[in-house]
Amino acid sequence: MVIQKRVNQIRKFMDVNDVKLSIVWEPDNQFYLTGFRAISYSRPIVTLLEENEVQLIIPGLEEAHADEKANVDRIHVYYEQYGLREQVLTYIEHLTNILQQYPRNTKIGVEVGVLPASVYLFVQNMGFLLVDIGAKITEMRSIKDAHEIELLKVAGHLSDLAIGESLKNVRIGISELEFDSYGDRLLLEMASKDYPDELIGYADWTCSGLPRSEMPHLYSSTRKFMDGDVVVHSRQVWFNNYRAENERTFLIGNVTERQKDLLKLAIEAQQVGMELIRPGITAGEVDIACFNVFKKAGLADYVQHRVGHGLGLSEHEEPYLRFDNDLILQEGMVYTIEPGIYVPGVGGFRHSDTVILTNNGSFSVTKHARDFESMRF
Amino acid sequence: MVIQKRVNQIRKFMDVNDVKLSIVWEPDNQFYLTGFRAISYSRPIVTLLEENEVQLIIPGLEEAHADEKANVDRIHVYYEQYGLREQVLTYIEHLTNILQQYPRNTKIGVEVGVLPASVYLFVQNMGFLLVDIGAKITEMRSIKDAHEIELLKVAGHLSDLAIGESLKNVRIGISELEFDSYGDRLLLEMASKDYPDELIGYADWTCSGLPRSEMPHLYSSTRKFMDGDVVVHSRQVWFNNYRAENERTFLIGNVTERQKDLLKLAIEAQQVGMELIRPGITAGEVDIACFNVFKKAGLADYVQHRVGHGLGLSEHEEPYLRFDNDLILQEGMVYTIEPGIYVPGVGGFRHSDTVILTNNGSFSVTKHARDFESMRF
Repeated sequence: MVIQKRVNQIRKFMDVNDVKLSIVWEPDNQFYLTGFRAISYSRPIVTLLEENEVQLIIPGLEEAHADEKANVDRIHVYYEQYGLREQVLTYIEHLTNILQQYPRNTKIGVEVGVLPASVYLFVQNMGFLLVDIGAKITEMRSIKDAHEIELLKVAGHLSDLAIGESLKNVRIGISELEFDSYGDRLLLEMASKDYPDELIGYADWTCSGLPRSEMPHLYSSTRKFMDGDVVVHSRQVWFNNYRAENERTFLIGNVTERQKDLLKLAIEAQQVGMELIRPGITAGEVDIACFNVFKKAGLADYVQHRVGHGLGLSEHEEPYLRFDNDLILQEGMVYTIEPGIYVPGVGGFRHSDTVILTNNGSFSVTKHARDFESMRF
Repeated sequence: MVIQKRVNQIRKFMDVNDVKLSIVWEPDNQFYLTGFRAISYSRPIVTLLEENEVQLIIPGLEEAHADEKANVDRIHVYYEQYGLREQVLTYIEHLTNILQQYPRNTKIGVEVGVLPASVYLFVQNMGFLLVDIGAKITEMRSIKDAHEIELLKVAGHLSDLAIGESLKNVRIGISELEFDSYGDRLLLEMASKDYPDELIGYADWTCSGLPRSEMPHLYSSTRKFMDGDVVVHSRQVWFNNYRAENERTFLIGNVTERQKDLLKLAIEAQQVGMELIRPGITAGEVDIACFNVFKKAGLADYVQHRVGHGLGLSEHEEPYLRFDNDLILQEGMVYTIEPGIYVPGVGGFRHSDTVILTNNGSFSVTKHARDFESMRF
């Protein structure tokens, strides 16, 4: 039902823009419009939207899976096994067959920002006119409905469990990856108990000590925690594909006064953002308000990134909380609030929480303690 | 040194094809040519190759990281923070500045199979002629050098530890995700002990019981193991970005004779492939030889996929072991051997190992027991 509503919205957009068929390539967009998500890698999966039909092109090894999960009208399968030489062997053959039903100069919708150039050129060379539908899908995805919000709440809850368990196990001598794994293990145990037969995933990125914590985004490594470390820990947990982000910066043992002060400042900046964000203000205003906390402290030069990104099916979703974004925020949008500061020789400092905009404010689906005292080990 | 050699190979290709500048977009390709790999998501990173210079365009939050890791001649940074409004704010601005130094109709290399259409069109609209360099990089990456093979051996060893530990903990009532996590935890513990300050990653996909095990590729869920389950467990472990794949199908408790027979058959088919693969034969021959094991048993209709894929930096790499691929295999290629069979109402059966081709045969970097008796719990 929700999916039907989404498909109808795209169809309306197609109708207004005289687009007869849309090719949806990005896996999260396809999930959003069909309910089907597969591990694809080297075997393309394509969703095709027309006025009266939704079709899916899939590789043979996803046939049973798609039959079970995909809310589509028709499924086209391509095969790669020896015995089926007489069958369709590539996705492009199905795509060609479907496109050939339209006359030259028909308008075809594509996600121009993600579709591989080779596919774009292939469709163009068949004589069609290509129109972007990616921005429209992005805009639709930015407003979450009640069901999506319920999934995000569960994801937030599970991320809190995980981060809490990892933090309980902080000690000198364990590696970043071991630290991550304490929380992951409890996450999987609790999720298995409380949410049987569901999809749960997670990712962790832990940057400890110097210089790693100065770099906002690194994969976790086998570096071991040491006395005096600043640790920036990032975590995403997804429940039935919907992601919550939960990040905490913490201090181990004998850290310097400067390190303590910077963590307090990052916490303060985050509070400013979380209290400010609501429908009616612009994305840029939130970014600037947090930035000004660092600026007032004379630390503007050490800010390296915007204050937050949208969240949902993808790791990062548009639109962004960035100073030059004049978008007016709306109810149902989901954002991370994560002002960060990174000072060479001192460390990086950033908390991140996932907030959902309500009709007159916001609430966070991630609730683990954020205060300074809770971040000392 | 290795990286310099790779860059020189691309430059030779560019020279022959009159390409003056190449835009490398795919993250694994960029790592291959610069040694730098970042978590990117919504912030593009671009490598540019010219005759005399390798340049990198990166977002501000990767500046310190790239300074430390990237083997490039010049780094261009784009910023997104409020205080730096006078700076370059997008990657496309840097790209434009660099491209503008060339006259119209200059040939520009791009990976046409992965570059987003929007970027392709942007470059094309500046008046340049675009030439594919993706196939050349893919071809280069398919032959691993001694250093890459060492990394793959470590990845294989670590995947064996992980899979062994997960299998030690098989029991009724634990979920797929919990099963995965036993091995992951030991992996991280052992890797932290034996390989300090290195990058290690992992991914698991476990499909248990019916109908999940009939579907070759699913994300692990919170479904719990039951008596009589067939379980197809897939695992990749990467060490400094190089991946080994290790998959085992196992049986829990009271399974049927048919299920036992099918597992034995899948093991036999894999043995055929592992013994056959060597330089000088074609990719297709390996696929067909394994397929024929299933065909002889009257089960050709239940094969759903090719026998293997290349492996290295990416989850799947070209070229593929597929019946219609006439490519002659060479020393230094890396392949998974994973013939599978999937019978509705019975289950799926597939082992996968990662083999490296030597001058006269091959060896597997994944060594966990594969025999039938070791797969019963």
